[in-house]
Amino acid sequence: MSALTVALDIMGGDNGPSVTVPASVQALSLLPRLNLILVGDLSRCDALLRQHGLLSHPRVRLLHASQVVGMGEKPIHALRHQKDSSMRLALELVKSGEAGACVSAGNTGALMAMAKCVLKSLPGVDRPALVKGLPALGGKRSYLLDLGANVSCDADALLQFAVMGAVLAERVEGIAHPKVALLNVGEEEIKGNDLVRHSAELLGQCPALNFIGFVEGNELFSGKADVIVCDGFVGNVALKTAEGVARMMADAVGMGGRKRTFIGRIASFLLKQRFSNLNPDQYNGASLLGLRGIVVKSHGSANERALCHAILLAAGEVKAQLPAQIADRLETVLSDRDQ
Amino acid sequence: MSALTVALDIMGGDNGPSVTVPASVQALSLLPRLNLILVGDLSRCDALLRQHGLLSHPRVRLLHASQVVGMGEKPIHALRHQKDSSMRLALELVKSGEAGACVSAGNTGALMAMAKCVLKSLPGVDRPALVKGLPALGGKRSYLLDLGANVSCDADALLQFAVMGAVLAERVEGIAHPKVALLNVGEEEIKGNDLVRHSAELLGQCPALNFIGFVEGNELFSGKADVIVCDGFVGNVALKTAEGVARMMADAVGMGGRKRTFIGRIASFLLKQRFSNLNPDQYNGASLLGLRGIVVKSHGSANERALCHAILLAAGEVKAQLPAQIADRLETVLSDRDQ
Repeated sequence: MSALTVALDIMGGDNGPSVTVPASVQALSLLPRLNLILVGDLSRCDALLRQHGLLSHPRVRLLHASQVVGMGEKPIHALRHQKDSSMRLALELVKSGEAGACVSAGNTGALMAMAKCVLKSLPGVDRPALVKGLPALGGKRSYLLDLGANVSCDADALLQFAVMGAVLAERVEGIAHPKVALLNVGEEEIKGNDLVRHSAELLGQCPALNFIGFVEGNELFSGKADVIVCDGFVGNVALKTAEGVARMMADAVGMGGRKRTFIGRIASFLLKQRFSNLNPDQYNGASLLGLRGIVVKSHGSANERALCHAILLAAGEVKAQLPAQIADRLETVLSDRDQ
Repeated sequence: MSALTVALDIMGGDNGPSVTVPASVQALSLLPRLNLILVGDLSRCDALLRQHGLLSHPRVRLLHASQVVGMGEKPIHALRHQKDSSMRLALELVKSGEAGACVSAGNTGALMAMAKCVLKSLPGVDRPALVKGLPALGGKRSYLLDLGANVSCDADALLQFAVMGAVLAERVEGIAHPKVALLNVGEEEIKGNDLVRHSAELLGQCPALNFIGFVEGNELFSGKADVIVCDGFVGNVALKTAEGVARMMADAVGMGGRKRTFIGRIASFLLKQRFSNLNPDQYNGASLLGLRGIVVKSHGSANERALCHAILLAAGEVKAQLPAQIADRLETVLSDRDQ
């Protein structure tokens, strides 16, 4: 059994080390094969690391970083001027092969820009895409991509997203022949804009994909498709809309006037139990697919349990050797098209 | 007090006259100023109309139509070959001025195509838009448009949508200086695609609009904006996603294993009470704005109460003289731009 090594940017997120350090302890105890490289300002974190027994943990390596990328930093500034930041050094560890994946709860734009610059795209990938598993009926999981890495896309990009999402569903979720759909405004072939109609042709002609056609917004959580593909603008709006509705319903059902009623509390509890996947505080982690390395973005406001989940997600992708699997599949798809 | 006359396509919707006829009775009893023109196959509906006392109701006129537009009919076929359909005749009544508005639960594509052809666009409107009031925090209502009438739009179209939505919020909802926002993937000015960035410039320069910038998907139900503007592809996905999540949560919370638990039933009841606006069965009705007449599309699966709401919504728009108000405001906006 080989080790799974994840580099964690311990400075990232709204609460930084006070969340990332205890989350590391949780992840280490849950996954005995996990090794962590904790990257951050070690002088600031010394007491916290000591308190959690991480200064001399057999499966933990510490790496000092003199800079921290701020949550409001412009990506281009971070890219140019924060080369000794915890985020950047964690990505460099993936590039050098010392870590199999990087996890950060920091600035999304900066992480995407740095990841593309440090790790580079896989052959056949024009644009890396952000993907997340959504809870679906029957306890299933549906992967939605892109979630905002690319606000305008062409059909070739959507084909690549489809292939990458299918490999993820297959290798990490264990779904054989995952059903792939395009997100559209109707199920009929004549519906939609030029992008989805053209993309439907491309996906339908790809023998490596189990393309089932279009799904609509109300089917995102139906389990009808295992992988749902759209451009990053649409995917971001859909995901945030879903989170907004879920949060509004959970909040409102728990309120009877100004105080929570007894029944309201129970209803709210039930909702939280069943729809924790839609709550960014729990089971969080979006993967940036299409790079020569694994990068998982945790929600900035993640709590310990949420961040621990993002670490375990990254470890699962390392175990599945996701980048190599994606590269192989894309090579097949592209050589099929060229013939 | 002048009468408000609405033409109702009684053949439209999944259940046709068995829903539309009793819904008419409900609407007539709730709104004493309402006159209805019921348009449909009178020979087929005779018994039902008699049963509900509508054959000789003082505020009801009946108009026979020999054709019915099927729910699966292609819009272009309906437009060319169904000129004596209940949908078409109801629209013609608006054109001739005999009715102030048309309500139909029939084929959406056919209704939009026929409405544009029969009623024509107002001066200054390139594309009519579909709009719906969403429930928002604090008991507010936020209008989202376009919901799918236009799957690709330019910035000029989005400016027109913004003006039309603002007039609707002002005149029908009674909101002074409604706050108008663009739906985007982030709140910063640098975020988004070319369309939203260019549209933000146009909306920001328009003195007739109270433009507050961008909102994200999770803010659709926050009450932050009274009018939220996007292209029809994005709006359709957002609305259907919201409906899908709401339905999934309401369903799942009511299920403890295969049977509903007591608490589950209560939670489900609370959800239904509070989020009935997200359930297309209740408080339904989307307005097609920008035409020389009022057209309200009811959900195809609307029940009596839902269809009654769509009729009352149409009557409210007649009372507010919505098309004339929109035309006036657009004239002002366009003349400001030309100066």
